[in-house]
Amino acid sequence: MDKASLIGLVLGIGAVLGGQALEGGSLHSIMQFTAAFIVFGGTFGAVFLSFPLENVIGGFKDLKTVIKEPPQDPSKIIQQITQYANKARKEGILSLEKETKTVDDPFLSKALTMAVDGVEPHLIREAMETELAYLDEHGKISAKVFLAAGGYAPTIGILGAVLGLIHVMENLNDPSKLGAGIAVAFVATVYGVGSANLLFLPMATKLQVRHRHQMIVKEMILEGIVAVSTGENPRLIEEKLNSFLPEIQKLKQGKKK
Amino acid sequence: MDKASLIGLVLGIGAVLGGQALEGGSLHSIMQFTAAFIVFGGTFGAVFLSFPLENVIGGFKDLKTVIKEPPQDPSKIIQQITQYANKARKEGILSLEKETKTVDDPFLSKALTMAVDGVEPHLIREAMETELAYLDEHGKISAKVFLAAGGYAPTIGILGAVLGLIHVMENLNDPSKLGAGIAVAFVATVYGVGSANLLFLPMATKLQVRHRHQMIVKEMILEGIVAVSTGENPRLIEEKLNSFLPEIQKLKQGKKK
Amino acid sequence: MDKASLIGLVLGIGAVLGGQALEGGSLHSIMQFTAAFIVFGGTFGAVFLSFPLENVIGGFKDLKTVIKEPPQDPSKIIQQITQYANKARKEGILSLEKETKTVDDPFLSKALTMAVDGVEPHLIREAMETELAYLDEHGKISAKVFLAAGGYAPTIGILGAVLGLIHVMENLNDPSKLGAGIAVAFVATVYGVGSANLLFLPMATKLQVRHRHQMIVKEMILEGIVAVSTGENPRLIEEKLNSFLPEIQKLKQGKKK
Amino acid sequence: MDKASLIGLVLGIGAVLGGQALEGGSLHSIMQFTAAFIVFGGTFGAVFLSFPLENVIGGFKDLKTVIKEPPQDPSKIIQQITQYANKARKEGILSLEKETKTVDDPFLSKALTMAVDGVEPHLIREAMETELAYLDEHGKISAKVFLAAGGYAPTIGILGAVLGLIHVMENLNDPSKLGAGIAVAFVATVYGVGSANLLFLPMATKLQVRHRHQMIVKEMILEGIVAVSTGENPRLIEEKLNSFLPEIQKLKQGKKK
Amino acid sequence: MDKASLIGLVLGIGAVLGGQALEGGSLHSIMQFTAAFIVFGGTFGAVFLSFPLENVIGGFKDLKTVIKEPPQDPSKIIQQITQYANKARKEGILSLEKETKTVDDPFLSKALTMAVDGVEPHLIREAMETELAYLDEHGKISAKVFLAAGGYAPTIGILGAVLGLIHVMENLNDPSKLGAGIAVAFVATVYGVGSANLLFLPMATKLQVRHRHQMIVKEMILEGIVAVSTGENPRLIEEKLNSFLPEIQKLKQGKKK
Repeated sequence: MDKASLIGLVLGIGAVLGGQALEGGSLHSIMQFTAAFIVFGGTFGAVFLSFPLENVIGGFKDLKTVIKEPPQDPSKIIQQITQYANKARKEGILSLEKETKTVDDPFLSKALTMAVDGVEPHLIREAMETELAYLDEHGKISAKVFLAAGGYAPTIGILGAVLGLIHVMENLNDPSKLGAGIAVAFVATVYGVGSANLLFLPMATKLQVRHRHQMIVKEMILEGIVAVSTGENPRLIEEKLNSFLPEIQKLKQGKKK
Repeated sequence: MDKASLIGLVLGIGAVLGGQALEGGSLHSIMQFTAAFIVFGGTFGAVFLSFPLENVIGGFKDLKTVIKEPPQDPSKIIQQITQYANKARKEGILSLEKETKTVDDPFLSKALTMAVDGVEPHLIREAMETELAYLDEHGKISAKVFLAAGGYAPTIGILGAVLGLIHVMENLNDPSKLGAGIAVAFVATVYGVGSANLLFLPMATKLQVRHRHQMIVKEMILEGIVAVSTGENPRLIEEKLNSFLPEIQKLKQGKKK
Repeated sequence: MDKASLIGLVLGIGAVLGGQALEGGSLHSIMQFTAAFIVFGGTFGAVFLSFPLENVIGGFKDLKTVIKEPPQDPSKIIQQITQYANKARKEGILSLEKETKTVDDPFLSKALTMAVDGVEPHLIREAMETELAYLDEHGKISAKVFLAAGGYAPTIGILGAVLGLIHVMENLNDPSKLGAGIAVAFVATVYGVGSANLLFLPMATKLQVRHRHQMIVKEMILEGIVAVSTGENPRLIEEKLNSFLPEIQKLKQGKKK
Repeated sequence: MDKASLIGLVLGIGAVLGGQALEGGSLHSIMQFTAAFIVFGGTFGAVFLSFPLENVIGGFKDLKTVIKEPPQDPSKIIQQITQYANKARKEGILSLEKETKTVDDPFLSKALTMAVDGVEPHLIREAMETELAYLDEHGKISAKVFLAAGGYAPTIGILGAVLGLIHVMENLNDPSKLGAGIAVAFVATVYGVGSANLLFLPMATKLQVRHRHQMIVKEMILEGIVAVSTGENPRLIEEKLNSFLPEIQKLKQGKKK
Repeated sequence: MDKASLIGLVLGIGAVLGGQALEGGSLHSIMQFTAAFIVFGGTFGAVFLSFPLENVIGGFKDLKTVIKEPPQDPSKIIQQITQYANKARKEGILSLEKETKTVDDPFLSKALTMAVDGVEPHLIREAMETELAYLDEHGKISAKVFLAAGGYAPTIGILGAVLGLIHVMENLNDPSKLGAGIAVAFVATVYGVGSANLLFLPMATKLQVRHRHQMIVKEMILEGIVAVSTGENPRLIEEKLNSFLPEIQKLKQGKKK
């Protein structure tokens, strides 16, 4: 569970709703179906026109990682690769063939298979770096979807506001409708600016952070397997891989570099 | 047919028009010839001044790919290149001469011809990478045209609004004209912000995605033909090319990497 | 003559003036000497403070290329270099000495001279790439001047508007002046936003496109002369250089790649 | 103590509060709990949703370096590395083993240990450059946290203002509440724009500057230890490392390059 | 003396003050101590919080180069290096030892000293390129200081305006103060937008241009001294260095490339 995401969602939306209550306004006055229809319909219309269907669906699926951190534990993977290095040293790299089948991570599995197949280290690196580059490009798309939504929403909110103001202006000779009408128009701005800054853009940023974490783990795996395939000293491999963990992570493990 | 584009167009424009109807406004009040004349005339004036005529025409021609996905199927091309690799292994690379004439894709055709002509693999790579770089630069222009339109439209919309407001201000001593006049002025803002965020910018983004897909296919072709010309193992070539397909695509084919 | 630039200028400015006329406003009401004085004086003041005098003058001189495309024809240069390649093959590279003096383009002349002088191909490439990098940097300045003008103009327009509004506010107890005064203030916004989006930014973009075209021709010349100096097959050189022409250009020549 | 940070904080916030006093306004009128609740609750909600908890906490911890410059003195480190070079020349690189344990900086310690262990210079460079790249990425996060806060705050401020205006509009038939209500709404704008431009963005910039200083010191250490491990002339090493100090720093030391 | 900077300052500020006079407004109405206190106090507060003290001081010191171009003449330096090349050819590179002491420019002096000391050309290049990279990074800071000021000023101007409007709103039942109060509030906007667009941003741009000029001269020196140390033909060196001068500069010297 990503505590920061939960705190962020509750704090952000709570601040706006709570502020509204503190001012003595009713929730009712910022619940406006028409405004929501324009802003969210327009925003997602723009998002669907911007990206292929699979990317939009993939983006929404990835949203669960904003709340629930994926379980991958880099220090466990370091331990695993160090074990491979030890086994390869003692029993030869072919002894790792069994491991290639039990490994969960497809990237680790593919790299390990190449190493067991006796592919030369620099060719493993080359092939896995190409794979890495495309995984990186592909993995960034979900964040881009919400970045785009965060870009469209405020302007569509302004569009909704202007539409509301046009309506107000046409009824200007009926002053009693003036204030309420403008209020309605402003709700579209609240939806556009609020959804972008309290939801879409922060979620896009967290998706980027998550994706980068996954890429660092993959870069670490790549360095590790290349080192295993060159028969490097297991202790040196462990040390090298540890430098991939950011310092804060190291502190958690009670080690001091 | 790109479903997302259709959904996006209908949802985006429908949300704005539907929202207008829900508020009790008539469509008539957001149909304004003068505002359209200023906003779209100004925007396309700026676009024509920004780009050569061929680029603008090319941009509009490419718009059809926003709605109708080009038919290129990467997994079919992988299959094709794997067949070349098999044939080249068994009957020699010269046996592929016939294939160079039946190939549709000019990029694949050119690379294959070089391979059949016995050009060295690293020279094929070099020549095709230069070709790739220029194709990439050229292919990005259509998206740039609509990106520019999406940048100009909202500001020209504001220009139209200000022009409208000037007109209103001059007739300020006739209060009955005030509201309606401002409403007219706001329609220019709606056109500018709406066309940019519901049409131009999303279309530019989809054109970028489409172009990138085409480039990845070409990068895959390049790797494939270079591998064929070095006489690599056909099974390894197929595996290498598959890593070009994003994971979502792989899942579609019922494979799990 | 660049048709798109002419269309763009007429369409853009025509849309604004025509829209004003359609609304029943007089041209007179958007002709305001004071507003023009503030906006264009301020904008060019900022531009002169931003760039050295030669860059600003050079920028204005380059404006003619926005309207009148420079005559350089890449397919003619390809033909020329192919002839050099043929002659060098038959009569030796020294036979090209005469050509170095008749060539117009200084970049082609310099590269050819190095080739005739027997400088090694990789040294020609190195020297000409350095030259290319500086030509590229230098050639981008004119576009930057108008990009800067397009950045300053709208904000100076707002400055003019605020100055006007200050004036209006001071005369607030004379309501008859209110509307006309605000109208005057808005004209500054029209000048700032209009000049940036209908002139400065589009002209900067076209200057960038023109400059990039010139650079591609120079990159092509560089590849061509290096190939001539290594004694490559003239037919292969022609083919290599043709890949520099964007596909649209090729279609014009009635060829299909 | 970073004098500029203190001056900046006092000057920036003092200018706003002092200006308010000079205008004859009371501090009370810009102290608004509801506005603060919306703006800072919303901003930090967005920040928590954007980044993992450790990054946000790390960002706040790093804030102390904005006020209190970290003590690292590059010229002392140059002196230290020059001593290592001298000792390594006279007594062999193994004589530095004792130093690896007394060194504070973990980066210097790690590089020195590799040198003492006899790792080849180009492998030391490679390993430490990988370490450097990840330290760089990790060290930039704190600045990013405040950059994000500086991006969210003004828009959340506008959100608060619009919420306030909605409230005002609903009470429009009670003109006595009009002015005070709008004033309340504007305070949210002041909090959003003010906190972003007087606190978050400047602090993010200073964190970036601090981080870059630390990275330059690490780049210098890397060059120094690689030079020590290749047995370079200590005087040349000192000279090389001195070129890492910006010129202003050199002037402080009373040297002239 | 940089004529463009003088023209720019006079034209830009003159246009605003002149425009104010043309409209019949008094200078007095845009001279507002409180507004200046908020805008410039806030802006420089933010700048001091953003950068270390030396960088801010260094930025202000560099401002003199905006008005008075530094005297460095690249064609004189080319002449100088060509003389070194001639002397080194005739009398050996050691004969340049005397020159290393009379040279003003510390970068040229350092490179020349390495050449005279017999350091290998590729090591001179490597060492001086590292030096160049840090000089480049250091030299960009002054422009960044004013770029930051140009970013903060308009938003602090809006802050000042909102503070003013709050004050106005609190006195809304005294209509006579309304107009004058709003006028005061607007002056803060004028100061913020005006100082950013007529001073800070243009000065930052000119500082960038100046810095880039100095870097090109240093890149030229580097190429020249490396060529001297490899014993290249003096005439070829001169030609190579001339390609560093932008074409406009060449025209000034009455040469045609």
